[in-house]
Amino acid sequence: MSDPSIPKELFEENERTAPTQEGRRFVRIGPFRTESGGYLPDVTIAYETWGRLEGEGENAVLICHALSGDSHAVGWWSALVGPGKAIDTERYFVVCMNALGGCQGSTGPSSPAEDGRPWGSRFPILTLGDVVEAHKRALEKIGIRRLLAVAGGSMGGMQALEWTVRFPGLVDRAFVAASCAAHTPMQIAFNEVARQAIQRDPKWRGGDYPPDDQPSDGLAVARMLGHLTYLSPESFERKFSRRLQSKDRFEFTLGVEFEVESYLKHQGEKFTRRFDANSLLILTRAIDYFQLRDLSASTSRYLFVSFTSDWIYPSWQSQALAEMAWAAGLEAQHRVIDLPYGHDSFLLDGERQGLLVDRFLRENRR
Amino acid sequence: MSDPSIPKELFEENERTAPTQEGRRFVRIGPFRTESGGYLPDVTIAYETWGRLEGEGENAVLICHALSGDSHAVGWWSALVGPGKAIDTERYFVVCMNALGGCQGSTGPSSPAEDGRPWGSRFPILTLGDVVEAHKRALEKIGIRRLLAVAGGSMGGMQALEWTVRFPGLVDRAFVAASCAAHTPMQIAFNEVARQAIQRDPKWRGGDYPPDDQPSDGLAVARMLGHLTYLSPESFERKFSRRLQSKDRFEFTLGVEFEVESYLKHQGEKFTRRFDANSLLILTRAIDYFQLRDLSASTSRYLFVSFTSDWIYPSWQSQALAEMAWAAGLEAQHRVIDLPYGHDSFLLDGERQGLLVDRFLRENRR
Repeated sequence: MSDPSIPKELFEENERTAPTQEGRRFVRIGPFRTESGGYLPDVTIAYETWGRLEGEGENAVLICHALSGDSHAVGWWSALVGPGKAIDTERYFVVCMNALGGCQGSTGPSSPAEDGRPWGSRFPILTLGDVVEAHKRALEKIGIRRLLAVAGGSMGGMQALEWTVRFPGLVDRAFVAASCAAHTPMQIAFNEVARQAIQRDPKWRGGDYPPDDQPSDGLAVARMLGHLTYLSPESFERKFSRRLQSKDRFEFTLGVEFEVESYLKHQGEKFTRRFDANSLLILTRAIDYFQLRDLSASTSRYLFVSFTSDWIYPSWQSQALAEMAWAAGLEAQHRVIDLPYGHDSFLLDGERQGLLVDRFLRENRR
Repeated sequence: MSDPSIPKELFEENERTAPTQEGRRFVRIGPFRTESGGYLPDVTIAYETWGRLEGEGENAVLICHALSGDSHAVGWWSALVGPGKAIDTERYFVVCMNALGGCQGSTGPSSPAEDGRPWGSRFPILTLGDVVEAHKRALEKIGIRRLLAVAGGSMGGMQALEWTVRFPGLVDRAFVAASCAAHTPMQIAFNEVARQAIQRDPKWRGGDYPPDDQPSDGLAVARMLGHLTYLSPESFERKFSRRLQSKDRFEFTLGVEFEVESYLKHQGEKFTRRFDANSLLILTRAIDYFQLRDLSASTSRYLFVSFTSDWIYPSWQSQALAEMAWAAGLEAQHRVIDLPYGHDSFLLDGERQGLLVDRFLRENRR
């Protein structure tokens, strides 16, 4: 199954985020009422920008991150975003914001409430509509009235879609990678098992845990489960095969025997040092709620991309999105890219997505 | 994605085991040394039989269960085993034994050690070779010297393969469904996340938990994860779609919203009432160790069956087994059955497997 034509560097660990906080800025958008009826008296959105704004946003590209991302798009999406990249920070004004409900600077369940303690179980349930609504208000505050494009993969792609139907006319075009109009029951099921792993960790404490003692074991299991879905059978084979971890023969232990086990444990533990368990609950819930029924409100044009080896967000879901756009009389294309890296392909592939995105962003405006 | 031609009863809950203990018998095989160097001073194997033995086993069919099965094959494999079924209990002498390391009557980590306390962390790590070795000794004790056939799916298929290479000449033919020669790293990874869910439950206590207070939360998560792999995207869609659980609209809660979430929780909790967490660790470990390199020691003929919708044990793995048999100069056939039920197909399908198995068992002996 291993394919020697796959460049090895593409199989190096994908950090999915960069540790730097340089350049991260914050904007307060005031009180916020959620679709679920919840109320947040004072919401902050963390964001970063690159490049120089033209006009009210004629060259602005908003990047929406996936579940565990943050505002540092030139880190986690360096395949596509940066100087000379398809989303060229020397040509476009690029903005990326941490999701409402997240834990990388925007208001989320780990943020202090008015009593100084973390919101925890008191944080309202969110929808991706809430996330986009909050980002729209943040965008206004920083002086952007229109967008050349909105772009994202996975949960970021869902937000991009939401932008185009919630604020028609504001977004000229949307690039949506490895995403869908609504989670299937199997996709909900994968998220639910991750949530159960957290909620059944006694340290979750119903959501009200101290900031320095979160339910790390449950969160680690949830993250390991995530990694099962980010990779493909081929990438597992290429990265690990059945190699043992620093040994020649089985030690007959319940500890680590195979390299793949060590990788999963490492990924799980690393994640607990940078992510908040309640944020994972809130954001996976928002993803599962998301259900785009049609694109009739939209005036945007679309580029949909999917990957042959992405078994958790299969290509038929992107094809269904393209058909939804066509049904609404909108311009849309769907390109299936044949790469073996699974769902992670949207983060790793600069070359093939790059050509498509570069062309898509340079197409004349209507 | 839903296919109205799929009979609804095939989507009813698959119990995977029957509650009855009627007919379960026990045979003591004495002291046992494991491949890992462990020692069990007094091993019991639980088994059931149906039908009447001819000679030394000329009509005997041994059934090997999958991970969470037991000796009650007419329960969990009623699609294939019973009066008038393909593995016809009126024609064949059918034997099924609970795996060594299991928790349904055979010696396993929840059995009392000599000090009266459960073996727990002291139970030796096993291989599937150990499981087969123990069952061979049990078979001798109950007077069976040869087998017309050995049959099993998934982990049961691995044991069937092991029988044919470990005791050549004893097994005339082997029926192996939805199985493989060795777990891929992705298959190991799914097992490892299940193990981590258990081992990170504080109630696991390093493996030494009281019988009435096992790590139920970790075990439930492990089982839910298992169910993600037993079903196919199509069967998830057919069973649940995006239907809500007893409500018309979202309640905006981290509790149950979708039917599929209720199903998973129910499956997880039910499992903790009948299965032991350490058994799941020991048996998944044995599965991950299993690696059949060739069939050159075997003299058996083989029927391999795989299912188009089984994404966790894909057909190429059964094809590789058939090619291994052909390379050893053995008779073998591989049939790919087009059914939408995922890995569970091997448990649910009596009709198509039934025709193949019936013919395979009736072929003249050499």
